[in-house]
Amino acid sequence: MPLIQYLSRIVFDFGAISTLGTEIAALGLKRPLVVTDKGVSGAGILERALNAARPCVPFVYDDTTENPTEQSLLDCMDIWRDKGCDGVIALGGGSPIDLAKAVALLSSHGGALGDFAVTSGGSSTIGRVSPQIAIPTAAGTGAEVGRACVMTLLDGTKSVAVNLNMVADVVICDPDLTLSLSPRLTAATGIDALSHGIETTMSPWVNPPAGAIALDCIARAVQWLPIAVENGSDRQARWEMMMAALEGGLCLQKALGGAHAMATPLGELHLHHGTLIGILLPHILRFNQDHAAGALAKIRVAADVSAEFELHDWMHDFVEGLGLPVNLRALGVDPELLPGIAERASKDHLSATNPRPATADDYLGLLNAAL
Amino acid sequence: MPLIQYLSRIVFDFGAISTLGTEIAALGLKRPLVVTDKGVSGAGILERALNAARPCVPFVYDDTTENPTEQSLLDCMDIWRDKGCDGVIALGGGSPIDLAKAVALLSSHGGALGDFAVTSGGSSTIGRVSPQIAIPTAAGTGAEVGRACVMTLLDGTKSVAVNLNMVADVVICDPDLTLSLSPRLTAATGIDALSHGIETTMSPWVNPPAGAIALDCIARAVQWLPIAVENGSDRQARWEMMMAALEGGLCLQKALGGAHAMATPLGELHLHHGTLIGILLPHILRFNQDHAAGALAKIRVAADVSAEFELHDWMHDFVEGLGLPVNLRALGVDPELLPGIAERASKDHLSATNPRPATADDYLGLLNAAL
Repeated sequence: MPLIQYLSRIVFDFGAISTLGTEIAALGLKRPLVVTDKGVSGAGILERALNAARPCVPFVYDDTTENPTEQSLLDCMDIWRDKGCDGVIALGGGSPIDLAKAVALLSSHGGALGDFAVTSGGSSTIGRVSPQIAIPTAAGTGAEVGRACVMTLLDGTKSVAVNLNMVADVVICDPDLTLSLSPRLTAATGIDALSHGIETTMSPWVNPPAGAIALDCIARAVQWLPIAVENGSDRQARWEMMMAALEGGLCLQKALGGAHAMATPLGELHLHHGTLIGILLPHILRFNQDHAAGALAKIRVAADVSAEFELHDWMHDFVEGLGLPVNLRALGVDPELLPGIAERASKDHLSATNPRPATADDYLGLLNAAL
Repeated sequence: MPLIQYLSRIVFDFGAISTLGTEIAALGLKRPLVVTDKGVSGAGILERALNAARPCVPFVYDDTTENPTEQSLLDCMDIWRDKGCDGVIALGGGSPIDLAKAVALLSSHGGALGDFAVTSGGSSTIGRVSPQIAIPTAAGTGAEVGRACVMTLLDGTKSVAVNLNMVADVVICDPDLTLSLSPRLTAATGIDALSHGIETTMSPWVNPPAGAIALDCIARAVQWLPIAVENGSDRQARWEMMMAALEGGLCLQKALGGAHAMATPLGELHLHHGTLIGILLPHILRFNQDHAAGALAKIRVAADVSAEFELHDWMHDFVEGLGLPVNLRALGVDPELLPGIAERASKDHLSATNPRPATADDYLGLLNAAL
């Protein structure tokens, strides 16, 4: 049965970071913990956030790794207990946002992260978590409006916890925070945002509000991503891409598909998610073309692709035009790993919402074509 | 600064009412109060809801009036206290949904409704309210995802309380509940839904996700409302119109405009809101045409209106084609009242978000044209 869920309060504008102090006070926080990473602190963005937090003086954890780990979580929990923290502020991309969700969860529920895995049913026991503010510093994942955290446990396995109670209380989207992103990272994160619009449009799940937002995400990203990559200081392009990423996050409830099903196991090779998605998207568009004709027609209109081009060819050229790699070999992927990755992709829950059913053999064909 | 807020969890499908018992249990309610009206109980819809609520046996208040009153609220509060209620289930159109919000508010906060008026700043003191489930039985207002309640106080004045904490915890949208609506009521409520898409598209406020949902609302309502009016038992048309109404409610955060600014004071003459909106919409479209060219172009595309028609002429014909009145005289509006109504429209907060500033004189011109 269709389930439509919008649960976020989002302050969105140039300079929105200046509202942080007000939002901290509105949540009644006295001793919040900022969860961020060295990239964010090195770029001076942490300092801007701390200035905006005044008169509140948050504690800081800035050792988040690219794929957040349970060890980072334990370190954060040590600070939380030592300092008597009462809320968490995520500042960064998907990794600090995921880690902050885990901090909000364990600080309110106790136990270990593995207790709340979606695979074991533990996620359904998650109640109200500690207060959270999410501040994205890139325009990509849309994790700022997400309900899930993905972490690597101490034993090396991945654990995913998902519950609507983990949605951040407040999201602050300030496009100015993305002005210093490199062209390469702008392109790779922006393609991830665009892919959320494209894959959710193709998903067979029924959710018209999400469907409408997805098409707006596509139109916006296709128009503005090349400009943001070309000229990172174009503030309007940064605004539009942060909006596209937010919209991509809002429409994720309509579910993703095959490109993300393949990107999940490939990501464990420590490859950048958005870069992988850019390589895989043209291939899944081609694979789906006779099984999602209505959706592909909508994507074509939203992306303003004329009838003379095949959609997958246009997608390939768009990714290449951004300066991103268009095959897996360019990332150094070992062809011998592909059968195992195809097998795992076929079992990924995101594969179930690809409009065309895909077997491990199908995925292997796609991966080889993308090689 | 743009603020984007989606805070609803919505179960949407044919037969969705069957989930009521599960949702009552999920909220932990033991003794909920159903707030509804005689129209809903007379149509057998209350009985269906009570059957679906099993094993829970809710208490029932079915005396909600068309414009809900503080007296109804006091009566509900008597039941709440006598029976030890722990949550409220709104079942009906905008009136029971508004009344239920007021019950959720006073049962959790104490005091009188007037204490929480938005005009006095009282609304900002509203914290978490009692648990609420909202079940619309018409496809129109979108109040099921609203954050406001409008009530007539004992002294005859109107009071509006608004706070995000008043958004219902769960919304159950079951298009089957609308199958028995008359063609006239289907048309009048459906025009209200469509008008939410149209006026929010014209509003100058920046909220792209709401803007995307508004355009989908317009396209859906224009396509399906004539079919739902023509053949009330067309289940797909009922599904689509309930979705259009929900989308209309979701995009209201982008703000309405002049048609609603006039409909508010006119509504106090006890005229049906949607019928009024249908009469006023063509006139506000004409008034705005040179001040919202981009928005009107989007509306034209969404509504599939060819270039040979003026948008306001098309709108007039659309309303007339549904069998609705197209002038105020048909509703028996006394022309002598119009200057006072124009004056109040110009001071209504919704007038501030009409794309073309409108004075009392402007509104008087529009009202006379609509006479």
